[in-house]
Amino acid sequence: MIVVMEEGAPATQIAHVEEYLAEHGVRIHRVDGTTRTVLGLIGDVTTLDRSLIESFEGVYEVVKVSEPFKLANRKFKPEGTVVQVGDVRIGGDEVIVMAGPCSAESEEQVFAAAAAVKRAGAKIFRGGAFKPRSSPYSFQGLGEAGLKLLRTAANEHNMQLISEVMDLSQIDLLEKYVDILQVGARNMQNFTFLKELGKTRKPILLKRGMSATIQELLLSAEYILAGGNRDVILCERGIRTFENFTRNTLDISAIPVLKSLSHLPVVADPSHGTGIRDKVPPMARASVAAGADGLLIEVHHDPDRALCDGAQSLLPEQLKALTKDLKTIAAVLGRTFASSPLD
Amino acid sequence: MIVVMEEGAPATQIAHVEEYLAEHGVRIHRVDGTTRTVLGLIGDVTTLDRSLIESFEGVYEVVKVSEPFKLANRKFKPEGTVVQVGDVRIGGDEVIVMAGPCSAESEEQVFAAAAAVKRAGAKIFRGGAFKPRSSPYSFQGLGEAGLKLLRTAANEHNMQLISEVMDLSQIDLLEKYVDILQVGARNMQNFTFLKELGKTRKPILLKRGMSATIQELLLSAEYILAGGNRDVILCERGIRTFENFTRNTLDISAIPVLKSLSHLPVVADPSHGTGIRDKVPPMARASVAAGADGLLIEVHHDPDRALCDGAQSLLPEQLKALTKDLKTIAAVLGRTFASSPLD
Amino acid sequence: MIVVMEEGAPATQIAHVEEYLAEHGVRIHRVDGTTRTVLGLIGDVTTLDRSLIESFEGVYEVVKVSEPFKLANRKFKPEGTVVQVGDVRIGGDEVIVMAGPCSAESEEQVFAAAAAVKRAGAKIFRGGAFKPRSSPYSFQGLGEAGLKLLRTAANEHNMQLISEVMDLSQIDLLEKYVDILQVGARNMQNFTFLKELGKTRKPILLKRGMSATIQELLLSAEYILAGGNRDVILCERGIRTFENFTRNTLDISAIPVLKSLSHLPVVADPSHGTGIRDKVPPMARASVAAGADGLLIEVHHDPDRALCDGAQSLLPEQLKALTKDLKTIAAVLGRTFASSPLD
Amino acid sequence: MIVVMEEGAPATQIAHVEEYLAEHGVRIHRVDGTTRTVLGLIGDVTTLDRSLIESFEGVYEVVKVSEPFKLANRKFKPEGTVVQVGDVRIGGDEVIVMAGPCSAESEEQVFAAAAAVKRAGAKIFRGGAFKPRSSPYSFQGLGEAGLKLLRTAANEHNMQLISEVMDLSQIDLLEKYVDILQVGARNMQNFTFLKELGKTRKPILLKRGMSATIQELLLSAEYILAGGNRDVILCERGIRTFENFTRNTLDISAIPVLKSLSHLPVVADPSHGTGIRDKVPPMARASVAAGADGLLIEVHHDPDRALCDGAQSLLPEQLKALTKDLKTIAAVLGRTFASSPLD
Repeated sequence: MIVVMEEGAPATQIAHVEEYLAEHGVRIHRVDGTTRTVLGLIGDVTTLDRSLIESFEGVYEVVKVSEPFKLANRKFKPEGTVVQVGDVRIGGDEVIVMAGPCSAESEEQVFAAAAAVKRAGAKIFRGGAFKPRSSPYSFQGLGEAGLKLLRTAANEHNMQLISEVMDLSQIDLLEKYVDILQVGARNMQNFTFLKELGKTRKPILLKRGMSATIQELLLSAEYILAGGNRDVILCERGIRTFENFTRNTLDISAIPVLKSLSHLPVVADPSHGTGIRDKVPPMARASVAAGADGLLIEVHHDPDRALCDGAQSLLPEQLKALTKDLKTIAAVLGRTFASSPLD
Repeated sequence: MIVVMEEGAPATQIAHVEEYLAEHGVRIHRVDGTTRTVLGLIGDVTTLDRSLIESFEGVYEVVKVSEPFKLANRKFKPEGTVVQVGDVRIGGDEVIVMAGPCSAESEEQVFAAAAAVKRAGAKIFRGGAFKPRSSPYSFQGLGEAGLKLLRTAANEHNMQLISEVMDLSQIDLLEKYVDILQVGARNMQNFTFLKELGKTRKPILLKRGMSATIQELLLSAEYILAGGNRDVILCERGIRTFENFTRNTLDISAIPVLKSLSHLPVVADPSHGTGIRDKVPPMARASVAAGADGLLIEVHHDPDRALCDGAQSLLPEQLKALTKDLKTIAAVLGRTFASSPLD
Repeated sequence: MIVVMEEGAPATQIAHVEEYLAEHGVRIHRVDGTTRTVLGLIGDVTTLDRSLIESFEGVYEVVKVSEPFKLANRKFKPEGTVVQVGDVRIGGDEVIVMAGPCSAESEEQVFAAAAAVKRAGAKIFRGGAFKPRSSPYSFQGLGEAGLKLLRTAANEHNMQLISEVMDLSQIDLLEKYVDILQVGARNMQNFTFLKELGKTRKPILLKRGMSATIQELLLSAEYILAGGNRDVILCERGIRTFENFTRNTLDISAIPVLKSLSHLPVVADPSHGTGIRDKVPPMARASVAAGADGLLIEVHHDPDRALCDGAQSLLPEQLKALTKDLKTIAAVLGRTFASSPLD
Repeated sequence: MIVVMEEGAPATQIAHVEEYLAEHGVRIHRVDGTTRTVLGLIGDVTTLDRSLIESFEGVYEVVKVSEPFKLANRKFKPEGTVVQVGDVRIGGDEVIVMAGPCSAESEEQVFAAAAAVKRAGAKIFRGGAFKPRSSPYSFQGLGEAGLKLLRTAANEHNMQLISEVMDLSQIDLLEKYVDILQVGARNMQNFTFLKELGKTRKPILLKRGMSATIQELLLSAEYILAGGNRDVILCERGIRTFENFTRNTLDISAIPVLKSLSHLPVVADPSHGTGIRDKVPPMARASVAAGADGLLIEVHHDPDRALCDGAQSLLPEQLKALTKDLKTIAAVLGRTFASSPLD
């Protein structure tokens, strides 16, 4: 951390800052320039409050010279993390598709979806049992009955299962049924929840908040990692922008940026990222072309009758056509894709 | 709800929409114009998925013609709600100040703050015991020990107490100590939490999410109201914009807009809204001038040593000077302000 | 400017940076810390490209330690600038109202508006002759005929006149008729235009761009100041946010922030800032409460028949009622307001 | 257009709206529902002011049921427009690369860049002679001398030339030298300029404004088309979001959305879209995977010494490596890429 004083800041103001820093156990490397003084801080500065020091009289600016996230940092662990879920490896050479319906609605719908996405190359089955909805009057999910259906269908087709956990009160229940716990965008900064997730031993897929920065996403991952759970998958699912033709704006550039800053695997969710069925395939292709380790895609065999997110759900045959394209694009980046069922 | 078909949409597409709506128990008033057909829907449309119908072939647009929030709607209850907390009325003629430190840090600090804010005209004492922090390495609050200090200090000065509850697991604990439960911006769409808060009987102060729209804030209030708790106070605390000179951008216009759309009381938080001490007084004045029912202000007797939010905390004497201005501005709007201790 | 090297950056990378800086005539104060090297730059760094140096291998971050605007900076000129327009002083003790119709439409409308706003306390008459419209199919203004009407009406009521100039090709024409040249939000970064405005000798009212930061606004002012025109008035007119209940979000906090950073006068435009008639008065009050030097308000005697911006135009009697409130609020800040016609 | 009245709006309010519409030559199809009245408007509604009608008493909402852009609309012209520039076709089967330096700096630099980008497969040479810079103290370009260098280099390598025109005062000059006139993001809503460009007969590459919506971009294209120039190329170059790791956020989803809404060709600018050299290749791949008709890429043989945008300029060999990947991805979409020099 570097404290830059105002030009001509008087000695008393500089002394006040130095005293404060000394009280907090930080050593100071002081440089008196021709126009201003700069203090370089040595030691543990993680607990210092940058805004506070900036509010001291005579301080022009305080600059952090290291990222605030550590365990999630690629500098801390240069090789990429591979999250192993059963026989599926996320973050390795293979690009992984996680697909399924927005929510479990009925036995017929869940099993039809599972069969279809398996045929199209998906390795992981997705589906919701508890749904976060903006309005209290919208469909809220089947609850545990939905989890049972999803688990049975995943088993039948030899797929891993991912589903959203909405709150710390649901962790135990979800852990009984699923292989990956999904944390939704609205929960990205639910810190008590993140701490509890750090104590579980299931992989966590952490979605970026609707207006969160990349650094905030990594700090939220840090909460889970610091709790002891090292299997975190980051998910770009679209951010809020002024464009309202699409439901959100999928920030494709976040994929290569996250891959540089962190060792954690990165997947993209083009379904929520666009909210429009016929925009999902181009954005899925773009995500893989930009280096995504996987995709999260909503599929429904009869989307006009889906109880949620029908407008953005692919038909099974659309997923199948898409995965062929993805295989070629993955190869451009030296990666494999869904080796078995597709061939 | 109105479904507008594309120009020249064929009869089969119109029939598909009509069939779908009939299945969902909605009656249709159909108008065949010269260039396109429009379907007016009659009956309960709250469960219909607007995006889904828009994804049907031949549909140009679906228009909602009523707000999705009901219990929070001023049309539902034209007279303003007054939330009674002990002898304090929020939403009535008087403009209320809630003030105190960001977090409880020590007995000395809590009691000094309580005495100071009381002298300056505050009716409600604020202070945090559990702190939501972006980084897991920042100070996280004193927990229950902090709550005890805050309660004792509030009692000593005959003030009501407000403090943040971060999660449904903390509701029981907070209810034991505080008079108003504060829900932070990051929890505005934590829906399982909102449902639980609907079951409590303490007033809830609900902060607007960092990039939430006004409608989303009102839908979140709706979750609490629908659960049976009618004492909700809305709080504008700044939204995220591209401006980074201030920590957030306090959306003052949300105050009169919320007062039009809803009957619930509206307060503003200029401390988090700006993040800068010397910008708090002008924004506090502006909030009252725009019609706020109250203010939430951070105060610390030694902000340079505050464990959180020191940069935005007012000194007690600054609060005192500010409240004099607020009294005059409140009078312009025909309102009273802190009748007793100030005079 | 400070160049912070990566931890453990090798000597060759540091040498490359030093060499580059030396080529650009900058002296270096080098500090080799325990973990990293920091280079403090001495001399003229205004032409250095911060992003470029950050892209050099081994560079962690480049920090600018002075604002990029100079002539607009309050450090450069601590006392506030007062822009004198005829007998009106903007930026002095008095809070100034500029009011009038969105655009000149007819002789009757222009003269009715002028008489009404004068009675309500306006010192400056506003009105458009050339209108920037998102669609080529919307009303584009009366052109020079409109300017003549506006000038005659302003003269008749002894008011100064402000009107928008849309392009450098219009500067000469506008200069013939108006006292203050208004630059619209969409032109805030039209740099060839700003350079030309720097050569004029009429005061310029420069509106903040729809998603511009405060620093960008000040850099645009710098273009005009650097060209030799020192009479620049800054105008906050609302920024684009996710909230779409209001047309824009009036960033009231920009008012005190601009007053701190710059010596230039600051006015607010609550009409464009909200787009809704009944939200203009609360936001006008809030702007003055936050320290604005003036207001720009749209007024129309028959807004339902206005050719543009009718939805946000005040009726003359609404302006009159508002100005009474403003007078009291201005007094709270130690300022006067419209001393003559109101009394 | 549909005017939805409030529930229970009295007959006088409905009559006021009907009267207003009749005055504006619009016929009305009125539907009196059980709870509210809806007015369907028939005839030319392009000049009606939606916000104004919404401000009338008793009006709940006004809904536009057709896009405000016409000539740019794919419904108006279903087949895609191909812009022919010399022997290069933009919007056809082939994906086109436009590449070159940010600005012309010297003869050596311009010619080195031209040779390099030609070898890598570029069909169009790009380079700036007039540079829009946020600060008046930054390098502003070589002016006409730069244009001469760029033209000569483009001719020598048989490439077409694109360069930015900053203002209507520069149109004549630029037309003498370049094949495509580029309009920068900051000028997207400079309407007097757009009108003049409508009168030229050179193709226009129109960049999306930093916080413009897709509809606003198409309305700006409409200005040019309505003026008589039908050769408009749309360019996504990144929008402003809260993420500041990247310079802008390249909105890849705008590519397929623009291709659906409009018949105009769409290119992407991953250089400005990211601002970071090593993020340009993944975003270029993603753009083509999402359906872009071309790319605009900055290239410099010695980016550390570039006078602008060095941090985001590719080295010639990086462009060459990238174009190989693009060729494979283009084939996935059934498109060709740079048939000759690459093979």
